[in-house]
Amino acid sequence: MGHRVSELARELGGELLGPADLLVERIAPLAEAAADSITFIAQSRLAPQLAGTAAACVIVSPALREAAEARVAAGRGAVILCADPYLAFARLTQRWARETRRRPVPGVHPSAVIEETALIDPGAHVGALAYVGRGARVAAGCVVGVQAHVGAEAVLGEGSVLMPGAQLGAGCRIGARGLVHGGAVIGADGFGFAPHEGRWVKIEQLGAVVIGDDVEIGANTCIDRGALGDTVLADGVKLDNLVQVAHNVHIGAHTAFAGCAAVAGSTRIGAHCTIGGAARIIGHLEICDHVHISATTLVSRSILKPGRYSGAFPFDDNASWEKNAATLRQLHALRERLRAVEKAVGTSSPKPLEKKTPS
Amino acid sequence: MGHRVSELARELGGELLGPADLLVERIAPLAEAAADSITFIAQSRLAPQLAGTAAACVIVSPALREAAEARVAAGRGAVILCADPYLAFARLTQRWARETRRRPVPGVHPSAVIEETALIDPGAHVGALAYVGRGARVAAGCVVGVQAHVGAEAVLGEGSVLMPGAQLGAGCRIGARGLVHGGAVIGADGFGFAPHEGRWVKIEQLGAVVIGDDVEIGANTCIDRGALGDTVLADGVKLDNLVQVAHNVHIGAHTAFAGCAAVAGSTRIGAHCTIGGAARIIGHLEICDHVHISATTLVSRSILKPGRYSGAFPFDDNASWEKNAATLRQLHALRERLRAVEKAVGTSSPKPLEKKTPS
Amino acid sequence: MGHRVSELARELGGELLGPADLLVERIAPLAEAAADSITFIAQSRLAPQLAGTAAACVIVSPALREAAEARVAAGRGAVILCADPYLAFARLTQRWARETRRRPVPGVHPSAVIEETALIDPGAHVGALAYVGRGARVAAGCVVGVQAHVGAEAVLGEGSVLMPGAQLGAGCRIGARGLVHGGAVIGADGFGFAPHEGRWVKIEQLGAVVIGDDVEIGANTCIDRGALGDTVLADGVKLDNLVQVAHNVHIGAHTAFAGCAAVAGSTRIGAHCTIGGAARIIGHLEICDHVHISATTLVSRSILKPGRYSGAFPFDDNASWEKNAATLRQLHALRERLRAVEKAVGTSSPKPLEKKTPS
Repeated sequence: MGHRVSELARELGGELLGPADLLVERIAPLAEAAADSITFIAQSRLAPQLAGTAAACVIVSPALREAAEARVAAGRGAVILCADPYLAFARLTQRWARETRRRPVPGVHPSAVIEETALIDPGAHVGALAYVGRGARVAAGCVVGVQAHVGAEAVLGEGSVLMPGAQLGAGCRIGARGLVHGGAVIGADGFGFAPHEGRWVKIEQLGAVVIGDDVEIGANTCIDRGALGDTVLADGVKLDNLVQVAHNVHIGAHTAFAGCAAVAGSTRIGAHCTIGGAARIIGHLEICDHVHISATTLVSRSILKPGRYSGAFPFDDNASWEKNAATLRQLHALRERLRAVEKAVGTSSPKPLEKKTPS
Repeated sequence: MGHRVSELARELGGELLGPADLLVERIAPLAEAAADSITFIAQSRLAPQLAGTAAACVIVSPALREAAEARVAAGRGAVILCADPYLAFARLTQRWARETRRRPVPGVHPSAVIEETALIDPGAHVGALAYVGRGARVAAGCVVGVQAHVGAEAVLGEGSVLMPGAQLGAGCRIGARGLVHGGAVIGADGFGFAPHEGRWVKIEQLGAVVIGDDVEIGANTCIDRGALGDTVLADGVKLDNLVQVAHNVHIGAHTAFAGCAAVAGSTRIGAHCTIGGAARIIGHLEICDHVHISATTLVSRSILKPGRYSGAFPFDDNASWEKNAATLRQLHALRERLRAVEKAVGTSSPKPLEKKTPS
Repeated sequence: MGHRVSELARELGGELLGPADLLVERIAPLAEAAADSITFIAQSRLAPQLAGTAAACVIVSPALREAAEARVAAGRGAVILCADPYLAFARLTQRWARETRRRPVPGVHPSAVIEETALIDPGAHVGALAYVGRGARVAAGCVVGVQAHVGAEAVLGEGSVLMPGAQLGAGCRIGARGLVHGGAVIGADGFGFAPHEGRWVKIEQLGAVVIGDDVEIGANTCIDRGALGDTVLADGVKLDNLVQVAHNVHIGAHTAFAGCAAVAGSTRIGAHCTIGGAARIIGHLEICDHVHISATTLVSRSILKPGRYSGAFPFDDNASWEKNAATLRQLHALRERLRAVEKAVGTSSPKPLEKKTPS
């Protein structure tokens, strides 16, 4: 069951130093690697651990060639030099997954319910107690997991997977190689109401959700259908668990949302952005490409310049926080008092500071 | 398949200006409206676009009559004057939905599981792989969606809809015309434990959830059952996705929660409130009617006066935020230093500011 | 159907004062207790209400013996003295639950799908439309709820309950007496990708989730499987609804998370901690035992000392918040101005304050 390190090096396109016929049984994090393990060093601060780890094989950057050669010369095992050790690690996990996971066999489980006019490719798998609605299309290589749901007229692109209990709502589409985790709801109604005499009149949500290729959607994440047009996720978008994407939002290619992040209606987010955990973006904004939002930040205005943006209250021991939070509620008054003192003392003119407006 | 604008105007109770026999195929947002579209202008700042839009028909307020007549005179299409164009838009979407969506036919799908003693009105629809527990009641016009769940003794009121995968827990009740989106869990246990010798002893949650008429519950939203009494949502409440409503909470009529908002146990929220996205309300508070909470605000004390309340950290570019956040941790000390300077200079007495207490 | 107070006192190990044969029908909160109710007083500030409540029986601390005797002497009903009235209340709710709830009978519903090689104890119950995967084990006394899911090779320990729609993913394990609420997803993939040429390369998540005994998991909560090793929840952990636990996290025994709290990858949290509602803990941190995090706090550094930690922006009426928030964006500049004034006036040396670093 072991993997020969020479074979792994060849697959990864790396240069092997040391014994070619060592076998590894598992991938381990550096701190836990044992004699049966392959591990990797992706951060230079961990480089000193190359000498000491018990791992049979370590993947490192060519920058560590000298230390790698020393390790090999000392008979401590093999090293694979790869330009990007973290990427090599990712590819190793994919190899392990391919070998250890059972691939669902094509076919429809007898307990699944398939409506008439649904088109299911003979190369797709539909699991137990799953549902595929009328007019839906499930392409080759797809997996509709146990208890998962494909709504009427929905489209699941080639090789896409709905994990158990995931939902692709009526009329929604996902491209190729998508992965939707359990409990995710794609295509619930956007939240839209017109106020009328103290009540809310529903705005029926007539659009859908359109998702590109290579998109991953986390467990219990919600992506609402558009009000008139569609909510759109471009290729390569990755959403973690419990994320909320409201109606009419557009998310650009290869943008990633960490867990519990949320974006309100009609906001457009560019490509190659990262949205930190529990960060919030209000509605009707424009966020340009290559913007990085720190965890829990509330983005309340459009961002037109790439960069990192933050807005979390610094945490502290409770007593210190209480004092600072209490003072914060008097902050504007403190500024006025400072201004008065400055006037009395004649130190400075505060005017240039006035230009900044509140978010 | 087109809709005659004269017919739409009559239905909306609006005044038609221009050609009565124009046909529209779709509703479009102003920015995307084309020659086959009906659109609307609900904000006065958009009024100048009335002249230029390619839409066949535009719904506007009677305040824009003059511009509307000019548009019509120029042969650019029809206009409908409605007192509340946004409300008219909402009603248009409802018309579209009625015409384009397939209404589920009454009856129970053979794959659904209905326990003995459940009462399902012959005018209700129970979808594939759905479940209705013993003693539950499903009224006329209801839809229990595919894979949805109605627990034992639960009651689904007339015309209410559980979307696929939605759950109405045992003993919970929802009134007429309710709409519960996929993955919503109504009636999980409230989170209650008594601490005992370093462990948690469960407080069994003996109450239920009672929901009024015309309530909408978003996808993956959770409403916990009460500990002894019930958790209560009054008529017309609207909850977006991923909202958390803890045990014993009461939410007043026509109050709306945006996505990811949460309210902790036993808090009572009044009628006609709006709770912004990801806002949090701690437990055992009282919030009066007509309170509006801004996104991400933590409400930590009762609110007895209508109005808008806020408490978000303003976001900034990361470097500016870092500097300000670092200084914030010294804020109380800064106040003391300011006080010392004031004393030395003799500018002011800080006493009146001491009245405010921290939240 | 009433419960004799003498019997309840005996069961609770309390001392009964007053008539032994009074019957109570229900447990009520103090404010709602009527002549058919048993209630309790757990907070000393409520002690004065002992005299006035209409409850047939009140559970109080022995510290209130004198007032209890006065109540009994006045013929106002019975009192039970218990060392911990709140704990006694918890135990009462458990008694009520045992008596009023229907215990599922052992056996597998015919609509459930059980894969070959799954091992289901004859004393377990598997509900309608539930699924148990190949090689999974369901122990004695377990309940796999309606539409619930036990993945391949997963293990459900003795007496554990999956409520309707709950998911225990492939290879994941939960110990004895666990309770998992509807929509919870245990074992979705952790969120891990290696960046490569502007795209994300998936790191397959090869670990699982391992959960101890006596753990409760709230509705729609997500616990991701580990990347290489396992995500671990120790005995007695309690998670409320909509909680996010990322891959490789370890949560120590008897730690509780309130609703919407989240912890990012690889963080280790100690035992006996409480994490407030919507609090967030970033990844790769260490939190020691007995740490208490206030609601909505973002924990951005390790915490090595027990205690309470906070970091919420104090909320205010919107106008006050706007002024303070605007000034906050100039806070660092204000500090510089204060320093200049201090220098001019000669009041103080700010150096000691510089030691604190931003979180």
